[in-house]
Amino acid sequence: MRIGILGYGNLGRGVEYSIKQNPDMELVAVFTRRNPADLKINSNAKVVAIEEIEQWQDKIDVLILCGGSATDLPVQTPKYAKMFNVIDSYDNHKQIPTHFENVDEAAKEGNKLALISAGWDPGLFSLNRLYANAILPEGKDYTFWGKGISQGHSDAIRRIEGVKNAKQYTIPVEEALQSVRNSENPTFTARQMHTRECFVVVDEGADKARIEQEIKTMPNYFEPYDTTVYFITEEELNEKHGGIPHGGFVIRTGKTAGDKNHVIEYSLKLDSNPEFTSSVLVSYARAIYRLSKEGQTGCKTVFDIAPKYIISKSDEELRKTML
Amino acid sequence: MRIGILGYGNLGRGVEYSIKQNPDMELVAVFTRRNPADLKINSNAKVVAIEEIEQWQDKIDVLILCGGSATDLPVQTPKYAKMFNVIDSYDNHKQIPTHFENVDEAAKEGNKLALISAGWDPGLFSLNRLYANAILPEGKDYTFWGKGISQGHSDAIRRIEGVKNAKQYTIPVEEALQSVRNSENPTFTARQMHTRECFVVVDEGADKARIEQEIKTMPNYFEPYDTTVYFITEEELNEKHGGIPHGGFVIRTGKTAGDKNHVIEYSLKLDSNPEFTSSVLVSYARAIYRLSKEGQTGCKTVFDIAPKYIISKSDEELRKTML
Repeated sequence: MRIGILGYGNLGRGVEYSIKQNPDMELVAVFTRRNPADLKINSNAKVVAIEEIEQWQDKIDVLILCGGSATDLPVQTPKYAKMFNVIDSYDNHKQIPTHFENVDEAAKEGNKLALISAGWDPGLFSLNRLYANAILPEGKDYTFWGKGISQGHSDAIRRIEGVKNAKQYTIPVEEALQSVRNSENPTFTARQMHTRECFVVVDEGADKARIEQEIKTMPNYFEPYDTTVYFITEEELNEKHGGIPHGGFVIRTGKTAGDKNHVIEYSLKLDSNPEFTSSVLVSYARAIYRLSKEGQTGCKTVFDIAPKYIISKSDEELRKTML
Repeated sequence: MRIGILGYGNLGRGVEYSIKQNPDMELVAVFTRRNPADLKINSNAKVVAIEEIEQWQDKIDVLILCGGSATDLPVQTPKYAKMFNVIDSYDNHKQIPTHFENVDEAAKEGNKLALISAGWDPGLFSLNRLYANAILPEGKDYTFWGKGISQGHSDAIRRIEGVKNAKQYTIPVEEALQSVRNSENPTFTARQMHTRECFVVVDEGADKARIEQEIKTMPNYFEPYDTTVYFITEEELNEKHGGIPHGGFVIRTGKTAGDKNHVIEYSLKLDSNPEFTSSVLVSYARAIYRLSKEGQTGCKTVFDIAPKYIISKSDEELRKTML
């Protein structure tokens, strides 16, 4: 299976590493908008300018798109789905139906197969929502995120005047989790489900009281939550908050006959959000390769993929060792 | 979707109830080895003697087999896979490959579609083993069961002389779970993962010391575990231990680049083991119905079924609401 990567940020590097963990795959090229000569990568793949990508159509089985969901993927995935089998981790939930339509049309035009939104949310969390809803049709869904770094919230703090750098952790409220697990079917406000912890580095002489106030009262981002602000040094931020951990919980509680309660819980605890997402992308790239060989075209999501396609074991072996 | 049930024990009653929770399904007949006139059921379905089942081939879309794995299903599933689309919850892990071959051959002969081993283990736990192994190829798997009633262990106690009744709970060891969740990659003995609690009712005048000794030293069943025995009255057993709860944990821990740890955990907490298994059977019956309409035949497992087939929502709705 010959894989190409488009975009060499955290996600692209994660995919590169993940491919090394999967002997049935080979990374053949990394496509970049930068000057290829300036890009040092961690494998023997070719580094190729994005302008030359069309010449690689016969040399790549699946192109993994590692750009961002805000501006890269809405353009890139439909564009390259005409030339390659592609997969992305598009995570703007509200825009997924539109993105799907665009990619589906493009892939069908190119007679290629595409898969969007492969990651953990959307992705593995979505799968667990589906399985749990199918099995317990009368019930209630809960998704908690964290403990982990929210890029969007960290960015929002950095935009405040006087802030040099910041990291924001989203943290699920333990009592809320327990109430759900006890089948109490609680209805939560945002504040009751998650708290927010901010580690902030300020410019010399900046007004900390004003900054803390601006953070805590920021609409949508922080106002609806109990937010704690810690002012720390740049050194401490880099030393203790340099990682990109994340995770969360998908729980569905439901009833069967005679008011019997059932709790289905799925959780992730990830040291590196982008590296884990990369691993999901690589597994689903395998599925796309196999299903394209079976003649499938158009756009798919994780809901459309039979689990056996994402793992490099035979059906017999799977039944014998994992069923 | 017209459903038939074969066997009206805990599982069959659970399927009957679950069908009521799924408006796209209708229970049309319950087939029984008992005298149909003696069997009271909780729905308007016909109660039919098993001998007449062949006459129902055109009236049933999927037959759900609710017998036991020890002696019923190895015979019934291949037998009825020649006449109906069938699904079972066969749970003898070691014999799954053989059962699969038998059912696959029969279903192909009858041009029907079958699915075996749909429950939670095998079933949902198996799915989670597969997904987690595909995504974290370098890692370690752990399955913990409980807290729940083990039918096999309860039966083993009941066979001891002087024992009138007994219930056995399998309980995961909390410290072991924590060690796994902390990515310590422990290697466990059986004793370190689970403890066993036995609630035993004895005949009048029975030698409790001898019975306790016989339980605790029973090879395979109890000797490899820390086992606690409580002698209680029949009343207390019925009052406090009358349910059939179960559940467990499937955890995979694995690494990506730079020694980063990731933990994928799936858990179930079930008030009723058979009713939950029934709900899984019913969801997968939907998939079998749909895939048979697409012309598929032979035997499948949960690994072969794209998730979207088990839920009664359109692809568009799933992408919009669950992805």
